[in-house]
Amino acid sequence: MDETTAAAAPTGNLEITVSRAELLRELTAAQSVVERKTTIPILSNFLFEAADDKLTITATDLDQSLRTSCVAKVKKPGACTIPARKLYDYIKLLPEGEISLKLMDNHWVQIRAGRSNTKMVGMARANFPQVPEFPASSAVKISVPALKNMVSKTIFAISNEESRYTLNGALLVLKAESMAMVATDGHRLAHIEKLGETLEGISGEKKTLIPRKALAEIAGLLGSTDAETLEFADDDQTLFFKIGGRVLTSRKLTGQFPNYEAVLPRDNTKFVIVRSEDLMSSIQRVAQFADERSGAIKIRLEQNELKLSSSSTDAGESEDTIETPYNYDPLVVGFNSQYLIDFLKAIGNTGEVRLEFKDAQSAGQMRPEDANEDVKYRYILMPMRI
Amino acid sequence: MDETTAAAAPTGNLEITVSRAELLRELTAAQSVVERKTTIPILSNFLFEAADDKLTITATDLDQSLRTSCVAKVKKPGACTIPARKLYDYIKLLPEGEISLKLMDNHWVQIRAGRSNTKMVGMARANFPQVPEFPASSAVKISVPALKNMVSKTIFAISNEESRYTLNGALLVLKAESMAMVATDGHRLAHIEKLGETLEGISGEKKTLIPRKALAEIAGLLGSTDAETLEFADDDQTLFFKIGGRVLTSRKLTGQFPNYEAVLPRDNTKFVIVRSEDLMSSIQRVAQFADERSGAIKIRLEQNELKLSSSSTDAGESEDTIETPYNYDPLVVGFNSQYLIDFLKAIGNTGEVRLEFKDAQSAGQMRPEDANEDVKYRYILMPMRI
Repeated sequence: MDETTAAAAPTGNLEITVSRAELLRELTAAQSVVERKTTIPILSNFLFEAADDKLTITATDLDQSLRTSCVAKVKKPGACTIPARKLYDYIKLLPEGEISLKLMDNHWVQIRAGRSNTKMVGMARANFPQVPEFPASSAVKISVPALKNMVSKTIFAISNEESRYTLNGALLVLKAESMAMVATDGHRLAHIEKLGETLEGISGEKKTLIPRKALAEIAGLLGSTDAETLEFADDDQTLFFKIGGRVLTSRKLTGQFPNYEAVLPRDNTKFVIVRSEDLMSSIQRVAQFADERSGAIKIRLEQNELKLSSSSTDAGESEDTIETPYNYDPLVVGFNSQYLIDFLKAIGNTGEVRLEFKDAQSAGQMRPEDANEDVKYRYILMPMRI
Repeated sequence: MDETTAAAAPTGNLEITVSRAELLRELTAAQSVVERKTTIPILSNFLFEAADDKLTITATDLDQSLRTSCVAKVKKPGACTIPARKLYDYIKLLPEGEISLKLMDNHWVQIRAGRSNTKMVGMARANFPQVPEFPASSAVKISVPALKNMVSKTIFAISNEESRYTLNGALLVLKAESMAMVATDGHRLAHIEKLGETLEGISGEKKTLIPRKALAEIAGLLGSTDAETLEFADDDQTLFFKIGGRVLTSRKLTGQFPNYEAVLPRDNTKFVIVRSEDLMSSIQRVAQFADERSGAIKIRLEQNELKLSSSSTDAGESEDTIETPYNYDPLVVGFNSQYLIDFLKAIGNTGEVRLEFKDAQSAGQMRPEDANEDVKYRYILMPMRI
């Protein structure tokens, strides 16, 4: 069954046998796309379609959809819908082995495995919304490891404020020989560029805003695939990502991503290099005594010393000192401690990190210090007044 | 410093050095007793008292108190109070090594370790409530492993309804040569008896109602001690438990524990024996389709079969079958699935379990089937109409 089968609803009383391990693997991939709210009941269901030794599973919340499949013994081809969460939880609890699924009257679905026999209340297949189909042409192939890295290095910086519509995603920038991803919430910005990629079919620059929810799904799918490349395509309204045998679609965000290039610091000439682990430990300690609302801590650079400090009227005050070469003018600048921690987590809290500053009023920049010529990763933080 | 020092508040500006590992170990033991609500601010603090190469740490929420101690280098003896949660979180974040604590002006406490320097806002030692002192005489020694087992086998059956005052604890029954613990919430009852114990100083029967909160603390303290016995004592208002160097006190619950002996089934002659693991898996599967509010599932005993089943209007219906010898009259009886699961968890979901019934209107009984002559454990469940 190919993607076009979704449109032509198979009729008939689906009856199949499928391995519990394979079914569970695909349900695990699909269940996070299922609508959490139950305002539109059919969206809480999986669509199951069986034909040609294959079970195709579809989940959608209207913003996103995921189609995946596994091998099945198809006694009778057909389609049905099954409550997603309930099915997933139940299949998890079954022992390894074969599972039989059979569509009964009134949209009930019978599930048999070993000495377990269950019937779940489904809904009519006809109610399940049609999901967009992967375009036949013009897909771009993107390296899975490169994209995985880019997502993990930027997704945390996406805005949580739903009102800031164009910041609720990360911008993917594809060029013929490089790609980049950038995310910002207006207070900090994460930017990563990967050179030495060959992106066939791209000329000039292709910019795509990918919603956070889709990025989170992509991260999950990339984490559980053996595929080396992902196929990316889009049309006017929809983004498409084909990873292994799975197709994720996401409705496009409209609007203009901010002109981030204007905020990238150009003359942050004062810098220190410290071990990520040391910096993380110090920030975590000092952050305990930061003002709870702002989370602000003070970074003070002095002769061969980086001092981190905080104080709050309730809790007290705290200071940590890290010895490190520094020979520029002394500098004091405040930052949100959580934003600093987010970056250190994103780089795995290993190796060394470079902190680059201009003055107390200007954005600071953090970069991993390890020399990977092909990957340029930078993290820009707006200063806080403290 | 012995326990009586709590009354005679040491004055002077406490100044000590203590190993981070030892301090953290004792704070970990004490922090769960600290009051969570902040209506009385001093109860959110630890009391630190230093004298004679020892730091004594006290926490209380007025219902309970814990006193513990560790070795310290005492430069200046004295006492202070420190915000408990904040200190615990901070000490956890410090690297291994020596920590210096010093009481400053206005109840500030300075904490130094390596290149970290923190000041926390404490409160006057005089505000810290006095905690009850372990009675000088008449303590009973109780085996730590035996008590640990009794607590874990009964604590989950204690009522969560605060209004059912006398059910908010477990009853400890000490006799000269045995001890027992029993807990009930009115719907199920867990009873465990340990024979072959020698309890010196006990003649006849000593019954003590131990509040759930105290039992949870005791379970924690028993889990982290090398001591083989616990010392138990009480006076009119307070229970005392000395475990290793730590003393837990708990205000007594007043009121009469129900006459549980009347509800212990005597003629549950129909029984089956099943593997705990099989029963647990089947219950968990079937419980997915139980009515959400009641959690009720049906147990049906037929010729050499135990069937578990459930149905709900929303989710569907489910049945699991376990083959096992059964030759009595068929029987159908309903139980709360979570209550069944609680028991199987308490016995570690291993070995075999015996289910004993009379009829659909009478309480069922569950017991582990392994023959430990010294330990009699039984779990009684009221049936549900389904």
